Amino acid sequence: MAIHEECGLFGIYDGSPEANVAYSTYYGLYALQHRGQESCGITVNDGGVLTSYKDVGLVHEVFDNDRLNSLGKGKMAIGHVRYSGDGVANRLNAQPLLVRHVKGPLAVGHNGALVNGQDLREELEVTGAIFHTTCDAEIIAYMITRARLASKSIEEALSMAMDRLKGAYSLIIMSPKKIIAARDPQGFRPLCIGTIENGYVIASETCALDSIGAHYLRDVEPGEIVILDENGLRSNRDHCGRNTGLCVFEYVYTARPDSVIDGVSVHASRCQAGAILAKEHPVEADVVIGVPDSGLDAALGYARESGIPYGTGFIKNRYVGRTFILPSQAEREEAVRIKLNVLKATVQGKRVIMVDDSIVRGTTSANIVRLLREAGATEVHMRVASPPYISPCYFGTDIDDKDKLIACKMSIEDIGKQIGVDTIGYLSLDGIKQIAANADCNCCIGCFTGQYPIEVPSVLKKDKYDFKIGEEI
Amino acid sequence: MAIHEECGLFGIYDGSPEANVAYSTYYGLYALQHRGQESCGITVNDGGVLTSYKDVGLVHEVFDNDRLNSLGKGKMAIGHVRYSGDGVANRLNAQPLLVRHVKGPLAVGHNGALVNGQDLREELEVTGAIFHTTCDAEIIAYMITRARLASKSIEEALSMAMDRLKGAYSLIIMSPKKIIAARDPQGFRPLCIGTIENGYVIASETCALDSIGAHYLRDVEPGEIVILDENGLRSNRDHCGRNTGLCVFEYVYTARPDSVIDGVSVHASRCQAGAILAKEHPVEADVVIGVPDSGLDAALGYARESGIPYGTGFIKNRYVGRTFILPSQAEREEAVRIKLNVLKATVQGKRVIMVDDSIVRGTTSANIVRLLREAGATEVHMRVASPPYISPCYFGTDIDDKDKLIACKMSIEDIGKQIGVDTIGYLSLDGIKQIAANADCNCCIGCFTGQYPIEVPSVLKKDKYDFKIGEEI
Amino acid sequence: MAIHEECGLFGIYDGSPEANVAYSTYYGLYALQHRGQESCGITVNDGGVLTSYKDVGLVHEVFDNDRLNSLGKGKMAIGHVRYSGDGVANRLNAQPLLVRHVKGPLAVGHNGALVNGQDLREELEVTGAIFHTTCDAEIIAYMITRARLASKSIEEALSMAMDRLKGAYSLIIMSPKKIIAARDPQGFRPLCIGTIENGYVIASETCALDSIGAHYLRDVEPGEIVILDENGLRSNRDHCGRNTGLCVFEYVYTARPDSVIDGVSVHASRCQAGAILAKEHPVEADVVIGVPDSGLDAALGYARESGIPYGTGFIKNRYVGRTFILPSQAEREEAVRIKLNVLKATVQGKRVIMVDDSIVRGTTSANIVRLLREAGATEVHMRVASPPYISPCYFGTDIDDKDKLIACKMSIEDIGKQIGVDTIGYLSLDGIKQIAANADCNCCIGCFTGQYPIEVPSVLKKDKYDFKIGEEI
Amino acid sequence: MAIHEECGLFGIYDGSPEANVAYSTYYGLYALQHRGQESCGITVNDGGVLTSYKDVGLVHEVFDNDRLNSLGKGKMAIGHVRYSGDGVANRLNAQPLLVRHVKGPLAVGHNGALVNGQDLREELEVTGAIFHTTCDAEIIAYMITRARLASKSIEEALSMAMDRLKGAYSLIIMSPKKIIAARDPQGFRPLCIGTIENGYVIASETCALDSIGAHYLRDVEPGEIVILDENGLRSNRDHCGRNTGLCVFEYVYTARPDSVIDGVSVHASRCQAGAILAKEHPVEADVVIGVPDSGLDAALGYARESGIPYGTGFIKNRYVGRTFILPSQAEREEAVRIKLNVLKATVQGKRVIMVDDSIVRGTTSANIVRLLREAGATEVHMRVASPPYISPCYFGTDIDDKDKLIACKMSIEDIGKQIGVDTIGYLSLDGIKQIAANADCNCCIGCFTGQYPIEVPSVLKKDKYDFKIGEEI
Repeated sequence: MAIHEECGLFGIYDGSPEANVAYSTYYGLYALQHRGQESCGITVNDGGVLTSYKDVGLVHEVFDNDRLNSLGKGKMAIGHVRYSGDGVANRLNAQPLLVRHVKGPLAVGHNGALVNGQDLREELEVTGAIFHTTCDAEIIAYMITRARLASKSIEEALSMAMDRLKGAYSLIIMSPKKIIAARDPQGFRPLCIGTIENGYVIASETCALDSIGAHYLRDVEPGEIVILDENGLRSNRDHCGRNTGLCVFEYVYTARPDSVIDGVSVHASRCQAGAILAKEHPVEADVVIGVPDSGLDAALGYARESGIPYGTGFIKNRYVGRTFILPSQAEREEAVRIKLNVLKATVQGKRVIMVDDSIVRGTTSANIVRLLREAGATEVHMRVASPPYISPCYFGTDIDDKDKLIACKMSIEDIGKQIGVDTIGYLSLDGIKQIAANADCNCCIGCFTGQYPIEVPSVLKKDKYDFKIGEEI
Repeated sequence: MAIHEECGLFGIYDGSPEANVAYSTYYGLYALQHRGQESCGITVNDGGVLTSYKDVGLVHEVFDNDRLNSLGKGKMAIGHVRYSGDGVANRLNAQPLLVRHVKGPLAVGHNGALVNGQDLREELEVTGAIFHTTCDAEIIAYMITRARLASKSIEEALSMAMDRLKGAYSLIIMSPKKIIAARDPQGFRPLCIGTIENGYVIASETCALDSIGAHYLRDVEPGEIVILDENGLRSNRDHCGRNTGLCVFEYVYTARPDSVIDGVSVHASRCQAGAILAKEHPVEADVVIGVPDSGLDAALGYARESGIPYGTGFIKNRYVGRTFILPSQAEREEAVRIKLNVLKATVQGKRVIMVDDSIVRGTTSANIVRLLREAGATEVHMRVASPPYISPCYFGTDIDDKDKLIACKMSIEDIGKQIGVDTIGYLSLDGIKQIAANADCNCCIGCFTGQYPIEVPSVLKKDKYDFKIGEEI
Repeated sequence: MAIHEECGLFGIYDGSPEANVAYSTYYGLYALQHRGQESCGITVNDGGVLTSYKDVGLVHEVFDNDRLNSLGKGKMAIGHVRYSGDGVANRLNAQPLLVRHVKGPLAVGHNGALVNGQDLREELEVTGAIFHTTCDAEIIAYMITRARLASKSIEEALSMAMDRLKGAYSLIIMSPKKIIAARDPQGFRPLCIGTIENGYVIASETCALDSIGAHYLRDVEPGEIVILDENGLRSNRDHCGRNTGLCVFEYVYTARPDSVIDGVSVHASRCQAGAILAKEHPVEADVVIGVPDSGLDAALGYARESGIPYGTGFIKNRYVGRTFILPSQAEREEAVRIKLNVLKATVQGKRVIMVDDSIVRGTTSANIVRLLREAGATEVHMRVASPPYISPCYFGTDIDDKDKLIACKMSIEDIGKQIGVDTIGYLSLDGIKQIAANADCNCCIGCFTGQYPIEVPSVLKKDKYDFKIGEEI
Repeated sequence: MAIHEECGLFGIYDGSPEANVAYSTYYGLYALQHRGQESCGITVNDGGVLTSYKDVGLVHEVFDNDRLNSLGKGKMAIGHVRYSGDGVANRLNAQPLLVRHVKGPLAVGHNGALVNGQDLREELEVTGAIFHTTCDAEIIAYMITRARLASKSIEEALSMAMDRLKGAYSLIIMSPKKIIAARDPQGFRPLCIGTIENGYVIASETCALDSIGAHYLRDVEPGEIVILDENGLRSNRDHCGRNTGLCVFEYVYTARPDSVIDGVSVHASRCQAGAILAKEHPVEADVVIGVPDSGLDAALGYARESGIPYGTGFIKNRYVGRTFILPSQAEREEAVRIKLNVLKATVQGKRVIMVDDSIVRGTTSANIVRLLREAGATEVHMRVASPPYISPCYFGTDIDDKDKLIACKMSIEDIGKQIGVDTIGYLSLDGIKQIAANADCNCCIGCFTGQYPIEVPSVLKKDKYDFKIGEEI
């Protein structure tokens, strides 16, 4: 699957004398690396002095001991990993964004996408704002700092700003005195709270809490503002209580299986998807295999439910890095071999059920099926652990244009033929609604239905490449 | 598991007009990266001109398009990935070793370890040899080129050299006209042959054949010399027919599961180990989990045989790179959390069978068991898919000193206590013999028995750090 | 001398079909590298699209062919080299600053220092501005873009902004349609205009014009705004005609000797300083030597005027790079040996006149004199080609605190003793006024007199490290 | 001038408790950087353990504090800087070469070129030697270690080897117990000895002694072997007393002006060349200028002798690094502008005498003359501080093929026309003999006469690219 989610957030308030918040944030970002591999950054707050470092690269590429030590020691730090869904992959857009306003410095990290970002930007510009980046985070920073002029605290300013922000935004903010976390009223993106001996941790996923030995406390509620400072943790829930809509793709694909989001284990939700799929689309076969890594859990669920043995169908090469050289155009089709190899012992002479989490364009699936056939699979039955992907996402999941979505262009039957399988079965809309039925909030399944929890623009203004487009001046 | 095997070999003769042997070797080494992550190199033969590049780093770090193109085009190339088991991690020891002798240039890549390397080195030195590296490959290069003075061809010279070499050596050699591959008479390390449309491929494992779409032909036989040139493929089997002893650890841990070695699927051999283990050490439990990645296959085998459900017990962080910063000494014990996280949904409130491929020191196992307990496992039963590791390896597997091997120091029962499990069970010696019972050669299981297929020195001369030890002169 | 000037500017409008403005700017910045070795950047305007790259490092370290080509082709580009006089040496402060405002993108490069920068920053902040950097360039960008809201063009906005800016600012600005250059009304920093076949070039110094074969047209006048676009070159002189004050240190130290500033050759002005010095402080001696590189010209002038032979007294190591490792503290005093070696053949047994451009702390001079004595100089007479440095610079020259200025702490005679010379002589205030007597504008000699062409704050607010200082919020 | 000399050597024995020989060698190599900018290396001997690091790059690029500290502490170290005159610019050829032979480790650094290197290599290969590099240093290492088999000490072995080596070789060698330096019997390349408080220093030039505060003791004599160890310094002079021939180009171009070679100041020899030139080729003019850097000293000498004022004619850009991007082919001719700018104030309206050290191809000279004319010089008279270069160098100076030497192709008059000067004058052969008349050894002036101090091969075997040429095997 080629869908990428945008960002991971981490923040820590550690009042212990031996606290090293830069290192804790480093380990936390490690655990969130799957949420963004393009750039990363850490900002440390040492007695009100904010020091930051960020660059393009993986966490272990950007930071070494010298870098971490240069950030100083303190009680607070926030960090960010980013995947550029907006096509502008550069150092300037790396976060946390660190700015100075009339009340001092402010660091901001954002996960999500505003639907009214372009409108707000224009509104700010006509009142004298200038922009250095193409990130929504900068718009949000402006909205907060403008509101700060007419409010008594940074959290009050954030609350005022949230009256104007529409769309998906999980936020982590640090001022000289506080860390503030917030989740948009729909709760599109996850955000959770953990406790450590002398403080608190905020993270996009619970796996980051686990990585530093923090204990899961609860999720930030949709619409909630959480303030961490020397007085402990307190909340503003003025924006809570609206129609919620956690992105269901967090369960389907984005999050790490060992995370628990809004009360539901990601791994369990995927197993559940596989189990429902087994009921909805049974077929006689010898082995159930998953496409690594995001199809493995659903395959396990399918196997358990169906009673057909689970097998390891593919080995994924773990060393394929960002700088991996792709073969020449002519051999591009063969490239999948380098990343994924069929385990013949599992599939040779067998009727195979292959489970993946979703199908976007269908080209990779076709290549994988071909490999299975070459390895001697006698039948290949594809099972997809989510419904057909037919509608764009406006909330931070980077999906190809509608005309590249295979499910917009042909019937399910034709997709099966295109991919070369004997049968194909997608999870139903009813099914996807059940995979996290007990979650603490509703799920947005707009990408499968075209119905979103909030109004989306009929025409989405796409002016993100502004530094590349000049105007009369 | 902290055991590391040393090296991976790749060679290609491609007579196609559109051949790009540098890129093919690059992809081949990618598939073999698990055999050595410290340094790598490629040597291309363009019409008799040998051009080489090698450096410390992963394949995708050392090579980019410019580097690969700078190697030129040709019909032949060889490549090497290396893990330094000898403690000297440096650029000089990267291979292929490229030297010039009286008959021209020669490139040599080696996987294994000679037991008489030190003797041969001294013998060469007293007749005027000087050494630039601490690799056995340089000793082998000398033995071949010295023999070449009294022989008619490089393959004849290699055969003469093999009369003197004792120990483990899979070799890939390139002269201006030929590629020559060889495997020591015991066949300690794997080596296989594949075919492409206009040529042949040699590789340490079949997964490298698969990665470039080559077809598996057969394994190089223990003792066989294979010559590839414009006349095709031919063999010298003068050293074949002796007592064979493929390193059983290739099945247990080293090789990639999708490889087939000497006729046996590595994945299948591991599943088989798990199945035998289930028979030898049954226990009542709710779920069987494997320690990623090398314990997963055996766990699957154990689950199938026992009928106890297979589950995903751990998520491994795939982004932990070589430059990952370890926590301070005090927190080192916690470090396992960063690399491995327990999937609570699988183990909470469950009786867990945890399968790993082997135990060397036992410290990592103890940490993992602690994580399982913290996550709510009610019982933890450890099952080890190989016998207790009690004896050093002289043939290229980098194992800690005997006094660090936990199985040398305490009883199995005590190991279980130390690790903190409710029960522990190791695969029996009979069991390990059955995991690849149908292989085309016997296995060396010396690390479990102290009995080796060839004589090993009573005292192994360890003078590999010679550039660090001065003598009277 | 340890004084560093801050920045160099370059801009080009080239209407030729074969124009490659990125490369031209690269060569131009090369010629200006002496004005800033810390960071550099280039912004190219391709049909209104502004693309930028900047980083910490020398021009040849930051840019290679790929980088330059990635900037695209176009008719306009601006570039900047920077030395961080403000103690915050980082990537964020690299210029040109590229921002987007309501009318589109804007790139800004600045050389100089505002005296009311802090006031303007605070004024902007209370009306909602947020700052990403600690550069005056960002303040200037804000002042321009705010003014742009109430004006018809970017040049009109700049003119409005200049009503508020106080201090030193040579500017180079690029909008989608134009390049605009400006010099503050005093003309503290140099800026000149050159012509090429189909366009114009702007540069801090004429040496940058020479480097790309452009012809010198004239200097930008103090207070002048110059606009380059498809209609050619035009000016706004609304701010011209005030009291001018080009920094005399441009002649004394900062500029390259082959540059001509405001009508006067830098080399000639230094020779002239040396000649006047010879008249003011004659002494019997055998040879006149200069301290490389900035004392060489004055030494030549002294030698010619006095009739005492000119000699090469020192060889400077040209390979000492930014990453050169300084010896341990104990041996720091000896470090000068590594950078500078005495040419014994010139000084042994001789009475030596040593000319330097200025003395700041005096420690380096003392070390050099010691080397001369060790090499056998029988007498050492120091002659300084500028008056005693007694007052801070508010206009962009990075000078140590007053309490480190040796001339503030002791008499001239005592300075001589401290340095260890037989006699010492400084250029007089009358003398310094004559070194560029025919320049097209007056010179600021405030560092020698404490009298500046414009009012300076009694207490200079030093709040440049704002990202390191938190406040109540 | 495009002539490059090959290498610089440094060695130190420091018995002080606080000795840090790695750092001393680092500073020494800095001072010798002009002798080789391609690669460098340092080997430290810590109690008989030799640890080495070398790579492609300048000294300050290859070494940082970590690297230097990783070499350990000890009493002995040697270092090397290299320019690859042999066309094979790579890491493998970096020195010191560190090898192990029967008596232990040996590090070898070489400056020069053997005339019988190819013969010796072949002789070694037929007796079983294999080569890793294309350096003469490896041949020399073999000759020494082979001789060591039949001798009592490394110095005796070196003496035996010297019986066979023909050509130019200044050597610095380190065994576990000693540093040994040697100079070939002709003394083609310089090598000198300095003293420090508790030890000795060996260096290619005295400027390296000065850089670490060592005192010049004497030059190594042509043919002398010098041994440094805990017993102090001793010599073997068995190869002394033959016909000497120090490369005169060391005085003309290669060495640093502040060095003293075989008793003569390099700076003084160049001034002397200029003075003789003034007598041999007088002309009426207004100013004498030198081409930086190697023509400056001779220009000073010419000016003094002729009484015509000395002026600064050019400013050289000090920041042009190795990675500087050359303009496109069409603009290559203009490239000289970027590196060198005319100082108009010096030459405009003047009759100019331009002095350079030598002319090889003549293209650069022609470009420079054109710049002078453009800057308004009314006459340009070129004076060359050495005779016409007509014959190849076999001893380590990397000179273009004979057919690129302009003096081989046309008369002096025609050279003047080609370059575009009004008059041209070369130093006579008599003149060149006088520039270092008092040196402790004779000079080789073979490049000007075709007569060499030792026999040179009629056809020089050029088989240095051996790793690029395959043979039947």
